[in-house]
Amino acid sequence: MTKHPVFKPDPKLDLVLERTLDVPRELVWTAWTTPSHIPHWFVPKPWTIIDCEIDLRPGGIFRTVMRSPEGQEFPNVGCFLEIVPNERLIWTDTLLPGYRPAEKPFFTAILTLEPQGSGTRYTAIALHRDAETRKKHEEMGFQEGWGTVVNQMVEYIKSKMS
Amino acid sequence: MTKHPVFKPDPKLDLVLERTLDVPRELVWTAWTTPSHIPHWFVPKPWTIIDCEIDLRPGGIFRTVMRSPEGQEFPNVGCFLEIVPNERLIWTDTLLPGYRPAEKPFFTAILTLEPQGSGTRYTAIALHRDAETRKKHEEMGFQEGWGTVVNQMVEYIKSKMS
Repeated sequence: MTKHPVFKPDPKLDLVLERTLDVPRELVWTAWTTPSHIPHWFVPKPWTIIDCEIDLRPGGIFRTVMRSPEGQEFPNVGCFLEIVPNERLIWTDTLLPGYRPAEKPFFTAILTLEPQGSGTRYTAIALHRDAETRKKHEEMGFQEGWGTVVNQMVEYIKSKMS
Repeated sequence: MTKHPVFKPDPKLDLVLERTLDVPRELVWTAWTTPSHIPHWFVPKPWTIIDCEIDLRPGGIFRTVMRSPEGQEFPNVGCFLEIVPNERLIWTDTLLPGYRPAEKPFFTAILTLEPQGSGTRYTAIALHRDAETRKKHEEMGFQEGWGTVVNQMVEYIKSKMS
């Protein structure tokens, strides 16, 4: 596409996590889009992922089930919107798979991977409908949670995928 | 794509309008995706469209402003999700352009065009989050409204575009 990207984070509404990772973006992409890799890094330990379903196409399902250390389960269902291998992954919980409007819309996630030397410039953006939802997401621990799982992902890539 | 389409209408949640049109689908596609054509058919007369903006790519804007016979204006803003020229157009008001979750999500629209002889099999589907929203859309006059504008579109294509 020659035009500018259609998404534009707004500091009043959105949350952004940026990191430089010393692993190649192709491995980051694979870690993010493969159901068998996800459980190894996707939630801060000692939480676990006990199920993951990925249909990697626009409208396809992105489903995970988290389990707390106490054994409570939290399913998350989202819908993929854009898939540009090794570059950009966009999904939202505002829609269910197949584009049906969801009952409890919360955010859209945009993951961008750019090459930086032999590593990766990693940008995760969460788009919200209003400042209140942004604040709620921040208080739920967006920075800490997404930051922790990036570290877990890099460690996993280095020890198991490289 | 070789897999089945990701969307699946559910009679309890969704609304479907099907028609066979005696105009070629390439012209239907052009009428639906060109801002200068939209005002000629997109709302039941004597309502009018006084503005239209189309950025035909995933995440792009689909904006129209309707004006009632009494002069009241009703803006509608949606986000394109899938664009397969002459075949399939999907957009939603659940997301704003650039994939930001919208404040008042209502429905996702799926327009499918299939060749039928020299004409077009035209299917418009509205996906909703629950039966209540479906009912509301039905009571707003989905069948009548979408049916009327299809007739207006065919008339416009025959008189001005053919």
